[in-house]
Amino acid sequence: MSKKKFSIAVHGGAGTILKKLMNAEKERIYKKALSVSLEVGYDILEEGGSAVDAVEAAVYELENFPLFNAGKGAVFTHDGKHEMDASIMDGKTLKAGAVTCVQRVRNPVVLAREVMEFSEHVLLSGKGAEQFAKVRKIKLENDNYFFTDERFKQLQEVINEEGAHLDHNINVKDKKFGTVGAVALDKNGNLAAATSTGGMTNKRFGRIGDSPIIGSGTYANNKTCAVSCTGHGEFFIRAVVAYDISCLMEYKNMTLKQACKEVVNKKLVKLGGEGGLIAVDKNGNIELAFNSEGMYRGYKTSSGKELIGIYK
Amino acid sequence: MSKKKFSIAVHGGAGTILKKLMNAEKERIYKKALSVSLEVGYDILEEGGSAVDAVEAAVYELENFPLFNAGKGAVFTHDGKHEMDASIMDGKTLKAGAVTCVQRVRNPVVLAREVMEFSEHVLLSGKGAEQFAKVRKIKLENDNYFFTDERFKQLQEVINEEGAHLDHNINVKDKKFGTVGAVALDKNGNLAAATSTGGMTNKRFGRIGDSPIIGSGTYANNKTCAVSCTGHGEFFIRAVVAYDISCLMEYKNMTLKQACKEVVNKKLVKLGGEGGLIAVDKNGNIELAFNSEGMYRGYKTSSGKELIGIYK
Repeated sequence: MSKKKFSIAVHGGAGTILKKLMNAEKERIYKKALSVSLEVGYDILEEGGSAVDAVEAAVYELENFPLFNAGKGAVFTHDGKHEMDASIMDGKTLKAGAVTCVQRVRNPVVLAREVMEFSEHVLLSGKGAEQFAKVRKIKLENDNYFFTDERFKQLQEVINEEGAHLDHNINVKDKKFGTVGAVALDKNGNLAAATSTGGMTNKRFGRIGDSPIIGSGTYANNKTCAVSCTGHGEFFIRAVVAYDISCLMEYKNMTLKQACKEVVNKKLVKLGGEGGLIAVDKNGNIELAFNSEGMYRGYKTSSGKELIGIYK
Repeated sequence: MSKKKFSIAVHGGAGTILKKLMNAEKERIYKKALSVSLEVGYDILEEGGSAVDAVEAAVYELENFPLFNAGKGAVFTHDGKHEMDASIMDGKTLKAGAVTCVQRVRNPVVLAREVMEFSEHVLLSGKGAEQFAKVRKIKLENDNYFFTDERFKQLQEVINEEGAHLDHNINVKDKKFGTVGAVALDKNGNLAAATSTGGMTNKRFGRIGDSPIIGSGTYANNKTCAVSCTGHGEFFIRAVVAYDISCLMEYKNMTLKQACKEVVNKKLVKLGGEGGLIAVDKNGNIELAFNSEGMYRGYKTSSGKELIGIYK
């Protein structure tokens, strides 16, 4: 009976998400998107589908939702393009696939899955990754598809500034790390994680954050847990966040809750790294941990627990 | 007195390096290159220089040596280009810098160092990284600089095959994972690691291996150790090799030797990942671990220990 437990969690990014800057209608739309993503993943798990299928499908939904910074709704680079990253990892086989700096790919998480399943590689980049997408007959779109008014305005506001911006709503100082992700445990005890992002507004120099980096932004291992991160990517890379959660559990016998607290609320805070993560362990326990003002997040378990949240 | 200990190790790649396929003259040239690299790094440490300066200088020398697959001597991609990756990490600050898929950059490790010191990012890629190189006035070269007859022949031999090749000398089945790297402990107790590679012969799709990935190919932390890897990169990414060594020491109280054995000779072997790594701990102990036929390697410590090796 205990083997049949399953659960899923999703996130739509962390950051300074303040209630006073929201309105009821916008809240409703965000929550609806998280809910749809959760339900799609949950249904797959309930029908006996794999954790890998569930996280891919959940992230696919989040990528299609224009208010999240991934797929449609991805932010603009300094050059007015959309460069997206995604990764996926299968905790059963420790196989992984990821893409970085891809343009035109409608759903980067689908391409990451193809890399995992149908290439001899883990991480493909740029034009090369797009060539692989064509070989695999992955859906490509024109730049128009990714265009949203809100993102374009965000770029105009900062295009003459030096740095890249992690913020979603720079004008209202609503700092948000735009990433989406999912983690799941399936009925067979397999774990998986997936993450996808449109990166930083006004980013230059082909900057790559933690989202496509196995060990930093995404990690899954049936022995321990599955993790998807969102935050100031540079700090998450330096702290190897996702794998650190797994190591603290495997080597130090911490619970998932203890490991998340140690990494998100202690180590990352000390380093100056703002953000959060979602994680599920092999027993179906869920953690939604963040050290920022808020994180778009939700989970649903076979034991009937359910939550959708935005603020602290 | 014990605080004044220092040591450095370097590698020039691991793989099926068989004595019967070598000759005395070639051996001498390889050993000379390793020796020069070691001496340059050692001198910096002896004069009280930082571990970061030492590993950058040591890798710089290896990049300039045309028989190693990094900088001059980098292998050809499927498109007849040279796409190089490098990374560096400072164990004192946990700061890191890395570049991936860069062309024309004479010494990618120097650019990685610039990313660490002078950008707000950790990982820059492709044309964007080259733009950053120009901003920082880093030395660029024409494609001619990177051309070597041996590498060009290797490409011609395999260009019509499907897969990318990790091999150095495919014609003689002398499989070798072309990477260079250095790790060091300085007199102030600071650790650092750096890695650089020209990637895989005939590689396509913008493939990225473990060399530019902090946590996988390179990691340094004053609490534990500094690590630079060389091997079949996909497996090193999936196993988050460099950070795993550090975690086994920090969380499981393993010695450097125990941790290297666990990861290189057990976990990687189980996963099917061929290769090796060099590592130094905070007490100056050195490990040169590999599960392949050979690894170009060497070390030198302030206590007078010294070694240069190629085969098992």
